Amino acid sequence: MRIAIVGTGGIARVHRRIIRDLGGELVGVCGRSRAAAAALAPVPAYDDLAAMLDEQRPDVLHVCTPNHLHEAHALAGFAAGAHVLCEKPMATSLAAAERMIEAAVRAGRIGAVAYNYRGYPLVAALRRKVREGVFGALRRVSGCYLSEDGFDPAKYMWHFTPGSVGPGYALMDVGVHWLDLVEHVTGERIVEIAAQLSIHQRERIWRGGEGQGPRPPGHMAEDGSVRVMVDVEDQVDLLVRLSGGGGGSATISCVSVGHPNTIVLSVDGALKGFDWNQEEPNTYRERSVDGTLIRQRAPSLMAAEEADLTALPAGHAEGYIDAFRNIVAAAWAGMRGETDAFPTFADGLRGIRLVEAAVTSAREKRAIAVG
Amino acid sequence: MRIAIVGTGGIARVHRRIIRDLGGELVGVCGRSRAAAAALAPVPAYDDLAAMLDEQRPDVLHVCTPNHLHEAHALAGFAAGAHVLCEKPMATSLAAAERMIEAAVRAGRIGAVAYNYRGYPLVAALRRKVREGVFGALRRVSGCYLSEDGFDPAKYMWHFTPGSVGPGYALMDVGVHWLDLVEHVTGERIVEIAAQLSIHQRERIWRGGEGQGPRPPGHMAEDGSVRVMVDVEDQVDLLVRLSGGGGGSATISCVSVGHPNTIVLSVDGALKGFDWNQEEPNTYRERSVDGTLIRQRAPSLMAAEEADLTALPAGHAEGYIDAFRNIVAAAWAGMRGETDAFPTFADGLRGIRLVEAAVTSAREKRAIAVG
Amino acid sequence: MRIAIVGTGGIARVHRRIIRDLGGELVGVCGRSRAAAAALAPVPAYDDLAAMLDEQRPDVLHVCTPNHLHEAHALAGFAAGAHVLCEKPMATSLAAAERMIEAAVRAGRIGAVAYNYRGYPLVAALRRKVREGVFGALRRVSGCYLSEDGFDPAKYMWHFTPGSVGPGYALMDVGVHWLDLVEHVTGERIVEIAAQLSIHQRERIWRGGEGQGPRPPGHMAEDGSVRVMVDVEDQVDLLVRLSGGGGGSATISCVSVGHPNTIVLSVDGALKGFDWNQEEPNTYRERSVDGTLIRQRAPSLMAAEEADLTALPAGHAEGYIDAFRNIVAAAWAGMRGETDAFPTFADGLRGIRLVEAAVTSAREKRAIAVG
Amino acid sequence: MRIAIVGTGGIARVHRRIIRDLGGELVGVCGRSRAAAAALAPVPAYDDLAAMLDEQRPDVLHVCTPNHLHEAHALAGFAAGAHVLCEKPMATSLAAAERMIEAAVRAGRIGAVAYNYRGYPLVAALRRKVREGVFGALRRVSGCYLSEDGFDPAKYMWHFTPGSVGPGYALMDVGVHWLDLVEHVTGERIVEIAAQLSIHQRERIWRGGEGQGPRPPGHMAEDGSVRVMVDVEDQVDLLVRLSGGGGGSATISCVSVGHPNTIVLSVDGALKGFDWNQEEPNTYRERSVDGTLIRQRAPSLMAAEEADLTALPAGHAEGYIDAFRNIVAAAWAGMRGETDAFPTFADGLRGIRLVEAAVTSAREKRAIAVG
Repeated sequence: MRIAIVGTGGIARVHRRIIRDLGGELVGVCGRSRAAAAALAPVPAYDDLAAMLDEQRPDVLHVCTPNHLHEAHALAGFAAGAHVLCEKPMATSLAAAERMIEAAVRAGRIGAVAYNYRGYPLVAALRRKVREGVFGALRRVSGCYLSEDGFDPAKYMWHFTPGSVGPGYALMDVGVHWLDLVEHVTGERIVEIAAQLSIHQRERIWRGGEGQGPRPPGHMAEDGSVRVMVDVEDQVDLLVRLSGGGGGSATISCVSVGHPNTIVLSVDGALKGFDWNQEEPNTYRERSVDGTLIRQRAPSLMAAEEADLTALPAGHAEGYIDAFRNIVAAAWAGMRGETDAFPTFADGLRGIRLVEAAVTSAREKRAIAVG
Repeated sequence: MRIAIVGTGGIARVHRRIIRDLGGELVGVCGRSRAAAAALAPVPAYDDLAAMLDEQRPDVLHVCTPNHLHEAHALAGFAAGAHVLCEKPMATSLAAAERMIEAAVRAGRIGAVAYNYRGYPLVAALRRKVREGVFGALRRVSGCYLSEDGFDPAKYMWHFTPGSVGPGYALMDVGVHWLDLVEHVTGERIVEIAAQLSIHQRERIWRGGEGQGPRPPGHMAEDGSVRVMVDVEDQVDLLVRLSGGGGGSATISCVSVGHPNTIVLSVDGALKGFDWNQEEPNTYRERSVDGTLIRQRAPSLMAAEEADLTALPAGHAEGYIDAFRNIVAAAWAGMRGETDAFPTFADGLRGIRLVEAAVTSAREKRAIAVG
Repeated sequence: MRIAIVGTGGIARVHRRIIRDLGGELVGVCGRSRAAAAALAPVPAYDDLAAMLDEQRPDVLHVCTPNHLHEAHALAGFAAGAHVLCEKPMATSLAAAERMIEAAVRAGRIGAVAYNYRGYPLVAALRRKVREGVFGALRRVSGCYLSEDGFDPAKYMWHFTPGSVGPGYALMDVGVHWLDLVEHVTGERIVEIAAQLSIHQRERIWRGGEGQGPRPPGHMAEDGSVRVMVDVEDQVDLLVRLSGGGGGSATISCVSVGHPNTIVLSVDGALKGFDWNQEEPNTYRERSVDGTLIRQRAPSLMAAEEADLTALPAGHAEGYIDAFRNIVAAAWAGMRGETDAFPTFADGLRGIRLVEAAVTSAREKRAIAVG
Repeated sequence: MRIAIVGTGGIARVHRRIIRDLGGELVGVCGRSRAAAAALAPVPAYDDLAAMLDEQRPDVLHVCTPNHLHEAHALAGFAAGAHVLCEKPMATSLAAAERMIEAAVRAGRIGAVAYNYRGYPLVAALRRKVREGVFGALRRVSGCYLSEDGFDPAKYMWHFTPGSVGPGYALMDVGVHWLDLVEHVTGERIVEIAAQLSIHQRERIWRGGEGQGPRPPGHMAEDGSVRVMVDVEDQVDLLVRLSGGGGGSATISCVSVGHPNTIVLSVDGALKGFDWNQEEPNTYRERSVDGTLIRQRAPSLMAAEEADLTALPAGHAEGYIDAFRNIVAAAWAGMRGETDAFPTFADGLRGIRLVEAAVTSAREKRAIAVG
């Protein structure tokens, strides 16, 4: 596969490594500057996406730019005949996500979303076990996504610049992952959602460093900094009702100190329960009347159709990159028409729909039914 | 102190042991039958509360009966000039709780509620540390109370008999503890609550065993059993907003297999965070930018005024009885006029108020402000 | 039972509380001073053991003094017709332990040793499960006893005064517990031992504070302190071979920072394995080919003959005092002739024998067979 | 780098993946059969090592064959002018290891050993912190390597065939890793060792499956199986004394059920202690008088010279492959003359020396000084 990347930040570096590990051919990188693009990989560097697409004609465009640029970059990719693997969240509004899907259909190309946490072998195994009825009818689906990414009040990220991140910060940056995992693993739909939003860190100072994005609107101080009043939440508390009748609560926060990237999915069924935590992704806990069984990821735990997801014996930890590889590999296979088991643009749109419902719920202080 | 107990179930046995450990004089036990009362302790046994109070004239009546009897039993105690230590939840309605407070005032006696989980030394230490500002302004207050007490569908408890437990099962049986811990430890008030209720196990069979209470209304089958349709939730998902601006989510369940009695309080502040779990009550986790510090309960961790709460060095586990003792001792000291640092009837009423708000919220599918 | 205590330190306070909780009648306390004795409990206070025994004629003498006094105090107890419950280690030499046993036999009285860690319900349950063959033939019996009791170089305890503690510090103060647990739980004998001793903190300063014992020999500095060169190990590394063919290693240390009282017993059998840690005494881990099952202490886990050892449901933590109570209750029952299931003087002597073998092994740098 | 692999088992698959991830050019694979070699990778396949080396002239030969073949294969590699990256243990005897070193010197080529567990970022960070004095003088260095690889009595591996594995099974297969980590992280030498060996599973049945190696000597039953009496230990208990005065114990086992690959390094110093477990390689525990701090692997935790070892932010788990990559990358860099910070043949020989000392100690039941 001939791959191009647009975007040069931390997540672009992850894509670059995985493209190489999977034997993909990286044919171009486009950044805000050619220097930034050149720093990512020793391949042709661009600061003009159209030019890159025109010259390199990639099979796939990996979109690793800030949220509000996903739509334009994906559309450019489709227009150039490429498939698109887009970082999450897919877009900053439902309407934009719908336009992206239309563009994909029009171009006859595949759109995939980097819901990378689906790629853990145990996530796949748990999804299957739920489907097989191991846990019985699902009753409780709780958990959290706690991150300390925004904890330091002195830290600025492009997300804080109004208009960049979409209708939520915690919701859009990490919450979509949790919501996607819930629906993906349970095989059910969230049919009702109630949310409560908090902006704990209301003021941030842009100073123009790496990852801070272009200068936000506002008065620039003598030292070149700009004070930004953050208008998106950094914590969201959620109630969810599932199509099968289960319910649960979760808190999503980007200002939870001591939580580097804690994604917990905790489920009770009528027969058994389970808990999985992304920070220790090689085990899960299966609860029953006998107690709590810590099970290890191992090739022997997987079903035949999951065999490609894991290779190492138990006790030989797999990690974030291994899981992300699985998703990129699945998306590429989907683009080659070999599978439909990958996170699609429809899944990406679903995340935006749930985020918008949560925002409405918080504003109106009532539960919102989700179609 | 001369103590009498009304009630003979499992929690009455806990009270009996603690009364002895604290050097209290148990002067009488009253049960549904004199045999049940006699089985609890080798002291005068009654099946008539008025008779026991009249003959024994206890200083304190410990009310360990099902919820819907708390009011009548407390009122009888006050009428006989006794102080009352009442099991939680204090009553089955706000109105009943108010009548109990009026009775106490009228009698010039003290009413205390057995919010025993306040009695853990680390709960006291965390409450103080919050007050001292160690964690900064509180942002997130999440957690859970997960129990498997009602998981077995074949299990019947008096709680399932309509009219016995009050407006909720999970809420009343265990939820009040979590809500009380939140307000107690944070020193803040829950000012808004949103809830979602589930009845996962709708049908239960009464068979007349121990702890199942008297025969519920309904058709008795040939084998002497009665089928009961449960009308109270066994799971509740909550959103809470605190007076200081923090927020959080929690799930309370009595049907969560593999969770014997998991009470978690998880808090983020602007400076640090902490987590405490009742199942491992001798440690807590203090989160900061350096990582997560596991701190041990130890006398050296306590402030001077907390010195009575713990005696053993770190590594020598204290448990449920040790914590419960602290609360009984504090309540008795309160009754002797030596302290006001114990869970009062006002705290008991507060629990009922929050439960009623949660029930209203779930019914109306909207957030409810709490006075 | 009419009980007297000799000794007034921290462990005497534990005995005092348990005596009361069990309904024992405390009839006298003897200390180095009458003031110290009076401070322990509001009962007759003595500074002369013979006088206390003569005046109070207790049924049982609890010996809570430093190790080198155990022999004389136990002999005095037996001479006065009392049973003796002696703190561990039983004596400072094998010869002394043998004399104590002879005195008990001569007096027709029972000698028991406070191997309190046997009192945990899960220790009893694991001992039974081993006997039942749940784990298969035992292969590995490893673990540790890690304490930070002696970590602070500025801390002085009577143990450091030459002649007080016996042939080892870590071995005698905590190691005997681990060795006893190994033989108690496995039901096997340690038949060979190899040891390596370390004195990491060679110098300590006596200042005459509480728990530091009388002034040690040596030059007293102007500030009243005495410098003591410690001649007993604070860390011992062990290899053990069991009678059934299993083997294992362990490290015992009193200078292991961050380990308040970590006692681990980790066992592999031919069928399953288990791990138990005194710091979280309400669970154990049962390892099998399916993974690691965390089992909860619960009355339902116990056999009929173990029913008295635990009362609380799972999730309601029991602790150090609950376990210690079980051992005192068993010892008293033994003294009343009701049971022989308690730690006897023979078990106490066994500990000294193993310690002496370890000391010999370390000195001669070879494995020592133990009879 | 042009790389060739000899060997086609599980560890060869790990090397193959890492060679590709690092951008190495795999030029040939040699196996017991050309089919096995061809199955490993789509590159020229051989069943004759000399032919592969002659035709492909690789820069590096990765030796992934059973232990007793390491010497011959490494010598062949050097003779063909290749550098050699050899799997552990380096050889089956000290003499063989010495011959391999001589061959490397003669050829002017580099020999490296795949001590892959050194490659974890936290192992590097802890090694540096020890050197910086963060923990103070080291006192206790304990731990374990527990594996269930040989637990199933029905499982046969080539290791059980006499003559294949060297003087020990647990020692050679996994023990060398633990011994290497001790010396690598502490920066000290093990100067004395005492060991106790056990053969818990004495009989195994060869059936000729994958990974079982060629037919062992002995009578073949009608079903084609051969009964083998295992003459190497599956568990070893160790005492070690370090050059700096510290000491510790460890148990190494390959029959410890429920332990997929538990490698623990637990260290006490005069100031602080730490614990690291390979199964959760992204955190370590730093113990101090304040408690136990769980620290996360993160780029910010590393020193400048360690920056290449880790790329992902905290909470984004790195795993076994990431660590192994670091070692292969370091070895290749060493072969290019860019670094000497990689596990060398001298380190490999050191492992064999320690194993031989342990075996002697167990046979003679005494502690053995190690040069």
